[in-house]
Amino acid sequence: MSNKIFIDACFGKKTPYTPIWMMRQAGRYLSEYMAVREKAGNFLNLCHAPDMAAEVTLQPIDILGVDAAILFSDILVVPNEMGMELEFIKGFGPKFPQPLKTDEDLDALDMSASNKLTYVYETIKIVRKELADDKALIGFTGSPWTLATYMIEGQGTKTYAVVKKLIYSNPDYMHKLLDKLTVVITEYLEKQIEAGVDAVQIFDSWASALERDAFFEFSWDYMVKIAENIKAKYPHIPVIMFPKGISGFLDGIYGNFDVFGVDWATPIELAKEKLGDKYVLQGNLEPTRLYSRDAIDKGVDHIINTMKNERHIFNLGHGMLPDLDRNNAKYLVDKVHSDSSKF
Amino acid sequence: MSNKIFIDACFGKKTPYTPIWMMRQAGRYLSEYMAVREKAGNFLNLCHAPDMAAEVTLQPIDILGVDAAILFSDILVVPNEMGMELEFIKGFGPKFPQPLKTDEDLDALDMSASNKLTYVYETIKIVRKELADDKALIGFTGSPWTLATYMIEGQGTKTYAVVKKLIYSNPDYMHKLLDKLTVVITEYLEKQIEAGVDAVQIFDSWASALERDAFFEFSWDYMVKIAENIKAKYPHIPVIMFPKGISGFLDGIYGNFDVFGVDWATPIELAKEKLGDKYVLQGNLEPTRLYSRDAIDKGVDHIINTMKNERHIFNLGHGMLPDLDRNNAKYLVDKVHSDSSKF
Repeated sequence: MSNKIFIDACFGKKTPYTPIWMMRQAGRYLSEYMAVREKAGNFLNLCHAPDMAAEVTLQPIDILGVDAAILFSDILVVPNEMGMELEFIKGFGPKFPQPLKTDEDLDALDMSASNKLTYVYETIKIVRKELADDKALIGFTGSPWTLATYMIEGQGTKTYAVVKKLIYSNPDYMHKLLDKLTVVITEYLEKQIEAGVDAVQIFDSWASALERDAFFEFSWDYMVKIAENIKAKYPHIPVIMFPKGISGFLDGIYGNFDVFGVDWATPIELAKEKLGDKYVLQGNLEPTRLYSRDAIDKGVDHIINTMKNERHIFNLGHGMLPDLDRNNAKYLVDKVHSDSSKF
Repeated sequence: MSNKIFIDACFGKKTPYTPIWMMRQAGRYLSEYMAVREKAGNFLNLCHAPDMAAEVTLQPIDILGVDAAILFSDILVVPNEMGMELEFIKGFGPKFPQPLKTDEDLDALDMSASNKLTYVYETIKIVRKELADDKALIGFTGSPWTLATYMIEGQGTKTYAVVKKLIYSNPDYMHKLLDKLTVVITEYLEKQIEAGVDAVQIFDSWASALERDAFFEFSWDYMVKIAENIKAKYPHIPVIMFPKGISGFLDGIYGNFDVFGVDWATPIELAKEKLGDKYVLQGNLEPTRLYSRDAIDKGVDHIINTMKNERHIFNLGHGMLPDLDRNNAKYLVDKVHSDSSKF
């Protein structure tokens, strides 16, 4: 047993209660976060400043009492350090003004990017020093597919038209890019682990852009490669996979990793039936339930009574929303701890 | 047997080939559509002008050779005629400047809206007169949930925060609104049928906003009520249900209707396994496949070889995109007709 309940739960060990953390728990719904972000000037500055990034990483531990902190950073720092100019435009979101188009663009990507992400490793070192020993620190990355989609589209998209045209007309180009990202991401996660994270999560936020076969070919296979690289070298580090929006493909999920993140559109009992024996499940309260105590009560009852404090980490089924009431978030954490301890 | 292959297929009868139509087949990818729309001035004008709406309804029949025309209109004409001011803002989409908030707003909704949608019935009469007798005309409506969400949010939304707060804080308000919409929509579809449509489709575009239990409570139960109202009065009219983004809930689907529309995120073999015995399936080619002939070939092969020209209507798994090549759309129609005829 580790001294961290979150880590024990990742490995399916029986814990006195179900640990909880929340995606985007360090975020705009906390005035303390907004104060630091204002000091940083903008979002990317905050990612680049280890002292401040560490501070916002730690805030939800103190404020909410969650069982794990997640590194404050952004998935797009990886393509950024591979040489792609990155802007965050207010009211619009992230943008790469020069998306990838040619073979030369591919060749120009800097494969030593993980060496340049030193501000992330610095953040991790500061957090790990200040974080209580019984709390876990989760590192993370975007999946190759999700990062590649941003790099090809240049920005968020509803139809994924540019990247879809590419995978139909020139799948080799996409596979070359995904191979490169798999190498860089593996090194990036290894360096996060060396710097002190206790677990890693791979976010595939845009899994839902793909049909079943394409999801496995262009996304999941690469995520599994990364997971298996990490598990081979660091078997004691839990690997969490979070492909969002694939409730129709659960029966195809395979690979050597520890925890499967369940989005809120997937009924928790369906995930349990399909994957619960093989993987620990993480999730999956619908985030807007945090607007209402009654909705929290009903949602938590359903999830806790389904999972019964076995092979389960509590989380939201997507990220926190900026206008949520922190008191409700704290209420959720306390309720999950208390209710799950009865099993 | 009817003289319309599309109608026979809706009732699960064996047809010489699999009929095909495409969601949003009357749309911006056709220069002929753009010409009419320009003449109309704007989108809502086009919906209000029976001659022009009929013209764009008929275009894809001539240009693509699809087996069914779908009435050109918009789902939001219903709340509009219930008294809500409606704007279509370029680059933004539809907007209700005064979304529903109070009990008075609910009480003020005009329950006789179906009597005011005369331009829709006029469009249907013109189309039915000009449409070849072996082609079907599909009428449609938005589902109560999808319309209610627009009426509460006032516009498109990523998080559905306003409507979610409402269903948690005041579910009775939502149920009252859904009841009203169910009455109005039933009358609206009845009048479409009396005017001459051969089948009706209920679009639940925002089904994916809801968790499993909430989907059945706030959306599906009402869709089934409407379907059963229609089937009781018009058993010869096929009813098609299209709830988008619910591949995790297929095992809960119930009710008296004829055709289930499968979105592209749902593997067709999963839909066949869960629902194929009970309902005819419609779908589900991923729309961006229309960018590439090779992608069309592979996608059609997979779907046709799964369904084998039995209990199947071919369609896209979501609407046509504005920048698609019409020649590829025609290629798709011909390929579906030809390949499916071998079974």
